[in-house]
Amino acid sequence: MAPSDRRERREVALIVGGGPGISASCARLFATNGMAVAIAARSLDKPVLHDLERAHGVRRFGCDASDPVAVEQLFSTVVRDVGTPTLVVHNIDGRVPGIFGKRIVDADPDLAFETIRNAAFSAFLVGRQAARAMLESEPKDDGVRGSIIFTNASAALKGFPASGAFAMACHAKSGLAQSMARELMPQGIHVANVPIDAAVGLAQDDGTRAHRRAGPTVDDNMADPDRIAEIYLQLHRQHRSTWAFEIVLRPWVERW
Amino acid sequence: MAPSDRRERREVALIVGGGPGISASCARLFATNGMAVAIAARSLDKPVLHDLERAHGVRRFGCDASDPVAVEQLFSTVVRDVGTPTLVVHNIDGRVPGIFGKRIVDADPDLAFETIRNAAFSAFLVGRQAARAMLESEPKDDGVRGSIIFTNASAALKGFPASGAFAMACHAKSGLAQSMARELMPQGIHVANVPIDAAVGLAQDDGTRAHRRAGPTVDDNMADPDRIAEIYLQLHRQHRSTWAFEIVLRPWVERW
Amino acid sequence: MAPSDRRERREVALIVGGGPGISASCARLFATNGMAVAIAARSLDKPVLHDLERAHGVRRFGCDASDPVAVEQLFSTVVRDVGTPTLVVHNIDGRVPGIFGKRIVDADPDLAFETIRNAAFSAFLVGRQAARAMLESEPKDDGVRGSIIFTNASAALKGFPASGAFAMACHAKSGLAQSMARELMPQGIHVANVPIDAAVGLAQDDGTRAHRRAGPTVDDNMADPDRIAEIYLQLHRQHRSTWAFEIVLRPWVERW
Amino acid sequence: MAPSDRRERREVALIVGGGPGISASCARLFATNGMAVAIAARSLDKPVLHDLERAHGVRRFGCDASDPVAVEQLFSTVVRDVGTPTLVVHNIDGRVPGIFGKRIVDADPDLAFETIRNAAFSAFLVGRQAARAMLESEPKDDGVRGSIIFTNASAALKGFPASGAFAMACHAKSGLAQSMARELMPQGIHVANVPIDAAVGLAQDDGTRAHRRAGPTVDDNMADPDRIAEIYLQLHRQHRSTWAFEIVLRPWVERW
Repeated sequence: MAPSDRRERREVALIVGGGPGISASCARLFATNGMAVAIAARSLDKPVLHDLERAHGVRRFGCDASDPVAVEQLFSTVVRDVGTPTLVVHNIDGRVPGIFGKRIVDADPDLAFETIRNAAFSAFLVGRQAARAMLESEPKDDGVRGSIIFTNASAALKGFPASGAFAMACHAKSGLAQSMARELMPQGIHVANVPIDAAVGLAQDDGTRAHRRAGPTVDDNMADPDRIAEIYLQLHRQHRSTWAFEIVLRPWVERW
Repeated sequence: MAPSDRRERREVALIVGGGPGISASCARLFATNGMAVAIAARSLDKPVLHDLERAHGVRRFGCDASDPVAVEQLFSTVVRDVGTPTLVVHNIDGRVPGIFGKRIVDADPDLAFETIRNAAFSAFLVGRQAARAMLESEPKDDGVRGSIIFTNASAALKGFPASGAFAMACHAKSGLAQSMARELMPQGIHVANVPIDAAVGLAQDDGTRAHRRAGPTVDDNMADPDRIAEIYLQLHRQHRSTWAFEIVLRPWVERW
Repeated sequence: MAPSDRRERREVALIVGGGPGISASCARLFATNGMAVAIAARSLDKPVLHDLERAHGVRRFGCDASDPVAVEQLFSTVVRDVGTPTLVVHNIDGRVPGIFGKRIVDADPDLAFETIRNAAFSAFLVGRQAARAMLESEPKDDGVRGSIIFTNASAALKGFPASGAFAMACHAKSGLAQSMARELMPQGIHVANVPIDAAVGLAQDDGTRAHRRAGPTVDDNMADPDRIAEIYLQLHRQHRSTWAFEIVLRPWVERW
Repeated sequence: MAPSDRRERREVALIVGGGPGISASCARLFATNGMAVAIAARSLDKPVLHDLERAHGVRRFGCDASDPVAVEQLFSTVVRDVGTPTLVVHNIDGRVPGIFGKRIVDADPDLAFETIRNAAFSAFLVGRQAARAMLESEPKDDGVRGSIIFTNASAALKGFPASGAFAMACHAKSGLAQSMARELMPQGIHVANVPIDAAVGLAQDDGTRAHRRAGPTVDDNMADPDRIAEIYLQLHRQHRSTWAFEIVLRPWVERW
């Protein structure tokens, strides 16, 4: 069997955003479920990315996801080298150091702008290219072409004090996701927005990530990224007669 | 092994509402996943209930779920005869003939009241007894006691014209579910509200239900009850670090 | 000029619910703005009602607003004796003693049921008769027939722990109001839902209410009923090109 | 009385965005209610701005509201030359030609970015400077410092198909407004978000605007900008015990 044949047989997942939390958990889970996994990140040098490549054959691609040209190139490279993705996860938080807890009067416009660009504009670019790639490919027999999942945050649900810029970015991402869902679902693309209403911990049970042992692992008021990844896979596999657009995930003891 | 021992080993699911759609799909799926399943309905004579008993050992219990005494008795009987349920599904639509499409000026107060009683007050009674039963039992090692899932409808999301009474009932159910979720989740009970934003079809692939072949089966703008049941089971099995409270399910081609 | 002639010239407002807070403030404000005001309450003996009658000519009508027959009679009496109301305010909170702060497992079904009946079912009955009366009357030249305003509470916005029954009632009222708004606005009836996200204080500047001086007056985290009444009047007078359906009112220092 | 004395006596309103619809209606209404009115626009040459200056003494200021430095300069100039504004209206729609009705796959990233910058980032800049100016000034005796009102659109409530970029911008503006409201209301600044769920027509009754007679005037499914302006003034004058954060305005016959 030629490599090209083999490639066609495996589903391709592309994860944009390369952190050790949700992205890494998704990469591992998707790979162990038989998918060919690509991960795009600004910096390819993170230890977690090397681990994922070594342990699960995850392909790494450098990409500034807020740059239109870079995102177009990312998708054409992934389609050519790995295959057309049927599952795309946008997992960029986008907050830049210096915006946390700033009152509106103290907020730095440049940092606010960068946050919107990083988190929301990149979602637009990634969502747009994902839709293009999926619409150019053949759907399955039932008309389904794939899934686009946006990780989001509490700030998408509620604008908290002293976080205007992040509220803007997260709300923008929700608005984009909703517009894309209404437009693309009838064309066979399942679009989902998943606000995580909690801090995300580090998965505890992964042998590939000894280097992160210093960080906080999951406890009762943190969301476990491995569980989030499971829910993303369930969303991807939902039957087209029962597609969920939005799921808010929060730990059992979280107040809301 | 004595029957009582065997009973303790199996999870118990109780489904309140005994129609051939979501309730039957849940009963089959939960049973095939190893649970002891009880189903409560006003009338026990429906063919689907006999089928479920025969094919999957589902226990049938007669109960008017809008009667406080009847609901208390239901739970004490189920706990005694089947075991304490860790998964309770309230699946009563509650609409009575004669309320459909009625303008507010033509709406019959008695039918409106009956709708609220059937759909929302029964949810209160079932939810309350479910919480009692679960809180009286031992939690699992991780503190989790079980799940209470409320099936809901589009009218929970939006008050449509000419359906004031149903909008009241569905909104009431959402309010109840939300209050219960905030109260009970930190005590280990996962409460979920699942508005189905579509007509629910009949599952197509069930050999036990030849008698319902006359009805409409699932097509592209109907929700497949077997898929809804799968999502309920996923909700029940969600890790407590990532509990979803609300999931709206709709077919891919549905407008919203 | 005969009384009947004079009656036709004045707008008629009907307030259902007869407490010393929002209802009394509305009655005073509407009367001082030239309306003929009727107020319906279960008990007509409250001092505030006598004050309103003496000071502002407010007509008192006894009515259990959760009784379909009583509500029909109320409207036919008001239409006959005062005139067809063009502004109807449903201002019944409906909570009965004994439901406050009750955990779901301790909640009394009878009290829960009574709360739903008092708060939500009465809203259905009052809204229905108000719509009937308005639709039977001649609209103004611009097609507008009147306004129906529902006072609501925080529990309409969020289901708080340990208040399942009140969450049901308030959510039900919101669902009803939304359904009525979608149905009736194009027929010239402005329907509005006004959740007050705070405790309502007692107005401070009213000479007619010396008997209530013992109660708490408005402070910074309470809503002033006189101000709420002003907003109701503004809603009633909104031009049909810019009708607001829902306004949440909260004090400046309230957390949300 | 010296000019400076007179200036201190009048409230100052600043309207950012200089179109012939809501901005012009606000300027006229605020001026006729005794305020000193400043209006900021990218281009100062529009006939409507000359009319407003001539008829109502409205001051015109050139400003690109998406430029941080320009917005800082605008506020320092307005504070110096007109006075500290206690009412600031951000009324910039921000859509650029070429984004209307574009499917996500056809959307131009540059235009999408410009829309976000024009509509949402400018709201951040204007809101931030408005908060700064108000917090630096003396509050009234009751602690109130002023109001900041954001005009918004249907796309803030719902992400429509084929309008991803505008959905992002409007949702972002809502998120910002909500964050600012939670932060600033307890400091005496009333922040409001006003989605207009309709097309906005041209006011019909204004003698100063003969030059716009070619445009569509208000009919039954358009919002009248003069009425919107009235509601903005009511919001500004709401007592601090009953501040509304969000009001959706729509014509009576609009479907939603």
